[in-house]
Amino acid sequence: MALTVAQDWDRLAKDNGGIGFVDTLLRGAGQVMFQDNPVTGLLFLVGITWGALAADQWEVAVGSVVALLIATITAKLLAVDQTAVRQGLYGFNGILVGAAVPTFLGTNSYMWVYLIVGAAVSTVVMMAIANIGATWGVPALTFPFVLTTWFLVLGAWSFNHIKPVALGPTGFPVAIDNNAAHVAVSASMLAETLFRNVAQVFLINNVVTGVIFVIALAVSSRWSAAFALLGSALAIATALVLGASGSGISNGLYGFSAVLTAIALGSIFYTPGWRVLAFTVLGTIFTVIIQGALNAALSPVGIPTFTAPFVFATWLFLLPKEKFMPIPHAPIAHDAVSTKTTSGASS
Amino acid sequence: MALTVAQDWDRLAKDNGGIGFVDTLLRGAGQVMFQDNPVTGLLFLVGITWGALAADQWEVAVGSVVALLIATITAKLLAVDQTAVRQGLYGFNGILVGAAVPTFLGTNSYMWVYLIVGAAVSTVVMMAIANIGATWGVPALTFPFVLTTWFLVLGAWSFNHIKPVALGPTGFPVAIDNNAAHVAVSASMLAETLFRNVAQVFLINNVVTGVIFVIALAVSSRWSAAFALLGSALAIATALVLGASGSGISNGLYGFSAVLTAIALGSIFYTPGWRVLAFTVLGTIFTVIIQGALNAALSPVGIPTFTAPFVFATWLFLLPKEKFMPIPHAPIAHDAVSTKTTSGASS
Amino acid sequence: MALTVAQDWDRLAKDNGGIGFVDTLLRGAGQVMFQDNPVTGLLFLVGITWGALAADQWEVAVGSVVALLIATITAKLLAVDQTAVRQGLYGFNGILVGAAVPTFLGTNSYMWVYLIVGAAVSTVVMMAIANIGATWGVPALTFPFVLTTWFLVLGAWSFNHIKPVALGPTGFPVAIDNNAAHVAVSASMLAETLFRNVAQVFLINNVVTGVIFVIALAVSSRWSAAFALLGSALAIATALVLGASGSGISNGLYGFSAVLTAIALGSIFYTPGWRVLAFTVLGTIFTVIIQGALNAALSPVGIPTFTAPFVFATWLFLLPKEKFMPIPHAPIAHDAVSTKTTSGASS
Repeated sequence: MALTVAQDWDRLAKDNGGIGFVDTLLRGAGQVMFQDNPVTGLLFLVGITWGALAADQWEVAVGSVVALLIATITAKLLAVDQTAVRQGLYGFNGILVGAAVPTFLGTNSYMWVYLIVGAAVSTVVMMAIANIGATWGVPALTFPFVLTTWFLVLGAWSFNHIKPVALGPTGFPVAIDNNAAHVAVSASMLAETLFRNVAQVFLINNVVTGVIFVIALAVSSRWSAAFALLGSALAIATALVLGASGSGISNGLYGFSAVLTAIALGSIFYTPGWRVLAFTVLGTIFTVIIQGALNAALSPVGIPTFTAPFVFATWLFLLPKEKFMPIPHAPIAHDAVSTKTTSGASS
Repeated sequence: MALTVAQDWDRLAKDNGGIGFVDTLLRGAGQVMFQDNPVTGLLFLVGITWGALAADQWEVAVGSVVALLIATITAKLLAVDQTAVRQGLYGFNGILVGAAVPTFLGTNSYMWVYLIVGAAVSTVVMMAIANIGATWGVPALTFPFVLTTWFLVLGAWSFNHIKPVALGPTGFPVAIDNNAAHVAVSASMLAETLFRNVAQVFLINNVVTGVIFVIALAVSSRWSAAFALLGSALAIATALVLGASGSGISNGLYGFSAVLTAIALGSIFYTPGWRVLAFTVLGTIFTVIIQGALNAALSPVGIPTFTAPFVFATWLFLLPKEKFMPIPHAPIAHDAVSTKTTSGASS
Repeated sequence: MALTVAQDWDRLAKDNGGIGFVDTLLRGAGQVMFQDNPVTGLLFLVGITWGALAADQWEVAVGSVVALLIATITAKLLAVDQTAVRQGLYGFNGILVGAAVPTFLGTNSYMWVYLIVGAAVSTVVMMAIANIGATWGVPALTFPFVLTTWFLVLGAWSFNHIKPVALGPTGFPVAIDNNAAHVAVSASMLAETLFRNVAQVFLINNVVTGVIFVIALAVSSRWSAAFALLGSALAIATALVLGASGSGISNGLYGFSAVLTAIALGSIFYTPGWRVLAFTVLGTIFTVIIQGALNAALSPVGIPTFTAPFVFATWLFLLPKEKFMPIPHAPIAHDAVSTKTTSGASS
């Protein structure tokens, strides 16, 4: 029956412009974890709303939907490839901008204007980064969200009407001490963190939301759900072994990027297999190291990493290609400097 | 008559090597605001000189001319496309290096050596960045100036003979307070800031210089002059709405990048029209947000943003292309990792 | 006779898998200074070991060899171009990771795991950066080492089991004072620094190691040895003229990147000649300026520049190409924004 409903929906979405647009928005939500699936997207929105209301932050839920809408409409107005728009590829950065801005900045009318400008710009940045990445066949991932939102939250320091309520504290990086690294490991803590890591992909700190997100993934791809949990578990193990901040670990802050790296490398961009599994494990572990590195690097300016650790690790692990040939350490042919010389001068 | 003089000049510049070189230098000055026009360049030099002398900083005027000269000569010596050299495309980053170095570093003989090295390097960096940008059909803009001069002024902290007299103060970003954001808006303040924003493109804080610059633009392109003023007005409005630093606004520091973004998007790289106008407005507003963001991000190292907000915003708004196709979230063909696996192993 | 031994070795390396692998490792060491030569690599390992033992840091010698091994094996496991693997192009970033990690982080079992993960990742990053650089015909240089190791050492602030013993002190950049810039120049100081600069390419602060390294270069290429010494001498002169930190200069910290820039531009990637010599001198001087700049820029996060000044300067000086054409300041054809407009709207 579920299949029939899905077929009915797809037919409706094709025939009816309004339903087609809702379908586009839902796919946009789903694409945050690479799923071109409206049911996944719908469940993501349910999970976000649950988590936002549980934390008494309705602005995060509303902001996500508003930004998803604005980013998608901007894409429809610009003359971009409409197939990609229909797959939700211009929505997933917007929804993240809309979740992040009310999480880190104080709620007032200026914040909403800021959020709307940021959502529209995220579509332009998506087009820009996708154009660059296409040169090497790599996707933009969530970098348009990261870049746009870094500008937005950094700007909050300079603009009196935009309040950096959840930014900072700023400071030089200092070596973490034994106290801060302490974490009471228990079965329930591990189980909760496993799902919190998934929830934090949308900046939500809520176990139920994480469970809903994993179900949403499984609806579309069991591989993706499995790799989300694998990435989450690997992140917990890596962060515990290295001795990361206890509160950081248990709030899911060492896991959300690793979850995305594991889904991306393990189930989306490479064909699953043993070699890819090993490669994914290495990439996921390194994502946790980049998380620690960027936490330190950004501490003087007091802004969060967002999903940058996922983006950087996944780009580095996607860029290698079979026919790739490094430039040998030998003279470059036809350069601007030496060619004119060889005939006229000698050394 | 003006037309006849212009024709005479062009003929002279073609026939006489010396006058041709002067023509190249003047076009180099003009290209800072994208004008391949020697009269515009000449008026820019007049405006710089006026502003520099009014501020008792003759080094800025002399430095601009010296660096323009060095950068252009370096381009002639390297075997680059001489058509581009003749259009002044190797002069505009040099002249900006020459204006910035004496503005931020103390005057002594070492500073002059530093300025000359920087001007020569700016040409190499222009060739490098232009080569990269050509991959996506986007211009280098003033990024060669920004990158070269960031290295030069950051180096001033480390070199005892180079004095960082106008750098800093360094510090962590802190939320701007009501006092600092206060600004007494009046007709004269708005009118003055409108032109100061244009003058600050060359790091000059002078209303008359701004007026001369707008006239210089109008000589070459009325669209460019109009978009310069539109960008300036939009920047003032955006900065006031967001509550930026009052002294920053009235000294033109929130407007110079926006002026360049508006000229570039509105009148140079896109064909003017209503859609482009809306796109330019969005890009200009976001330039002001990037300005606030980079002000905060660079405060720990105490260096100015230069025109980086313009460069980053304009690149992001130029990179989208009609035939652009984002990479779908699906397996990448022919990768280094999984292809070998699919036949030999399964999961 | 040396020739016969070399021929014997090459035959053995071709016929015998084990000896072939040792040959690959030695070439990997040699490629740090661009030499596809096993004798050079062997002498580099001798120099590293000498310097490490003299400083009572056996971990640096062992770490270098272990990381060289791990990086090379990773490359053999991934389906990359095996000719490049045989030339050692997947070893040179690994060996540098292996020298740097024990130099800056405290020795414990976690550090060794960290080093092994970093060495394996350095190969993936090499493939990624080489793929990007190939677009413009420029090599990855040591950027895979720099990027990987920046992540590793920055992460040390966040991980309790990884100890940042030789990082920091963190702080805002401050203008260097006369005292710190003072240096007693003498013939012996100059001679020692000349070789220390070369030794510091592998993060070794030892004159004998520097002498061994220069001999190792001369075995493979007299041009490379000559340019190493030229780059070193130029770096000393530039740093003294600009007034860099006296202890920085005499410990070789202003010279190691300049040594690499000079070898790369002067003897490897361009055909030697007078024009190239002038170009190399400019690039080497600017490398010293970038060194001062990055020292200041990284001081808030307390990490070293590694060879980033070499990488950035050499990329900027390699990217210019003969047929290079800057993008003119004129409308871009076929853009996403304006094309749709021109028919439907006017302005």
